[in-house]
Amino acid sequence: MKRPDFNIVFVGAGNVASCLAPALMQKGCRIVQVYSRTQESAQTLARKADCPYTTDLTQISGEADLYIVSVKDDALDDVTARLACSGNPDALYAHTAGSMPMDVWKGKIRRYGVLYPMQTFSKQRAVDFSAVPFFIEANSEEDACLLKEVAGRVSPKIYEASSEQRRYLHIAAVFACNFTNHMYTLCDRLLAAHGLPFESMLPLIDETARKIHELPPLEAQTGPARRNDRNVIGRHLDILKKEAPELADLYGMISRSIHTYELNNKMTSR
Amino acid sequence: MKRPDFNIVFVGAGNVASCLAPALMQKGCRIVQVYSRTQESAQTLARKADCPYTTDLTQISGEADLYIVSVKDDALDDVTARLACSGNPDALYAHTAGSMPMDVWKGKIRRYGVLYPMQTFSKQRAVDFSAVPFFIEANSEEDACLLKEVAGRVSPKIYEASSEQRRYLHIAAVFACNFTNHMYTLCDRLLAAHGLPFESMLPLIDETARKIHELPPLEAQTGPARRNDRNVIGRHLDILKKEAPELADLYGMISRSIHTYELNNKMTSR
Repeated sequence: MKRPDFNIVFVGAGNVASCLAPALMQKGCRIVQVYSRTQESAQTLARKADCPYTTDLTQISGEADLYIVSVKDDALDDVTARLACSGNPDALYAHTAGSMPMDVWKGKIRRYGVLYPMQTFSKQRAVDFSAVPFFIEANSEEDACLLKEVAGRVSPKIYEASSEQRRYLHIAAVFACNFTNHMYTLCDRLLAAHGLPFESMLPLIDETARKIHELPPLEAQTGPARRNDRNVIGRHLDILKKEAPELADLYGMISRSIHTYELNNKMTSR
Repeated sequence: MKRPDFNIVFVGAGNVASCLAPALMQKGCRIVQVYSRTQESAQTLARKADCPYTTDLTQISGEADLYIVSVKDDALDDVTARLACSGNPDALYAHTAGSMPMDVWKGKIRRYGVLYPMQTFSKQRAVDFSAVPFFIEANSEEDACLLKEVAGRVSPKIYEASSEQRRYLHIAAVFACNFTNHMYTLCDRLLAAHGLPFESMLPLIDETARKIHELPPLEAQTGPARRNDRNVIGRHLDILKKEAPELADLYGMISRSIHTYELNNKMTSR
């Protein structure tokens, strides 16, 4: 086994840290300490990462050469400011937030950057990091290399991205992941209301995701909105208005958007 | 090889027929003829299914024991009426439309039903039918069995479903497949506008689909709308309003819906 050559403190014990810390540990990094506001989260992750924990930012270890901060975006400004006062002043500091600029560190600490793993993380599920793209940014080339090396321990897909590019990546990821998952949730709710098993949808969901490995999503589209099949759309809307009016609004708006893209596509491909 | 014991005419040569006809042929069914309004579609499918074609419904073959109708829902009423006049009056007739009732056949022909393969079909892509659930309905038990036998040739997942259940299945499938695919399209558009490759999203998209094999979609949800992270949501909306106002509306509506589901879930799980 490789000698541990990164000593890392994880600040935050949410979904990202809960997946990333054990993965880095398995690749020979030493997790020095974890911090979380709540004892329960801190303890759970500390157990996974086999390290001490704290719930007090002033008690953060000064023994690390890398501090990885994964907290709610709303808390990032405050946490980074307080962390900079208690952590090792010579170490490298990185946050993992898709839509927060690197400059959130500016003026607080000397060496800093971003390490954004573009994936959906849940504590209940281990993620295969070898398929997770990491987007890296740092305030020096040397530290960008260091962050690439750390991320490279768990994934072969390492890219550099500016704060602006990362912001668009994050918005796009919200559509591709969170909004997609919400479509699954709405599907689940509709089926459950009629005694139909969500399981029966999985082949369709899988094929929908597989298809776009081969076809651009605009070409892969099917269904009543693409065909502008107004009878079907009208019947679906009538049903939804009766039993779930909030779904009728979403159905209408997304169907119109599909149809608009289809029309624009036909016009430009003429 | 098994002796062909189903003689089938395909009426319509769209995405469903283009995938289903060759699959049934490979499992020993004989495709007697295909019909399409347009010569090009008819010819293409006839080549795939190694059979003659027609573009004239009055010239439909009387030699089949099963007629499978896959046409736009809007055209189904008219096509079934005209088909009933020229096809074999003793044969079984089935349509493949998710949201059309079985009764579209009533009064037109003696033996009829529905054979609904719940999948997204594109002509450009071969589908693995062994993972496609088929939902069957017929106006006699005997013919329901026959349709199950036909569908059973290509898939092990055969269910009976009433016209009402199928209607809900179809709405749910629109959310799980068409609307999901539209989220991919919007993601693609955002990335393309900023020189970022759609390919980099595929691991995230795949994991989002895989995750719900293990977790209910409501639990699998992540991201700013679930966390109700108003700073992120606000920044995303500001950016979208500037460069794609129609996406800002969708972003706002879907985010609100995610947050509502999250709140309801917290309340009920208290």
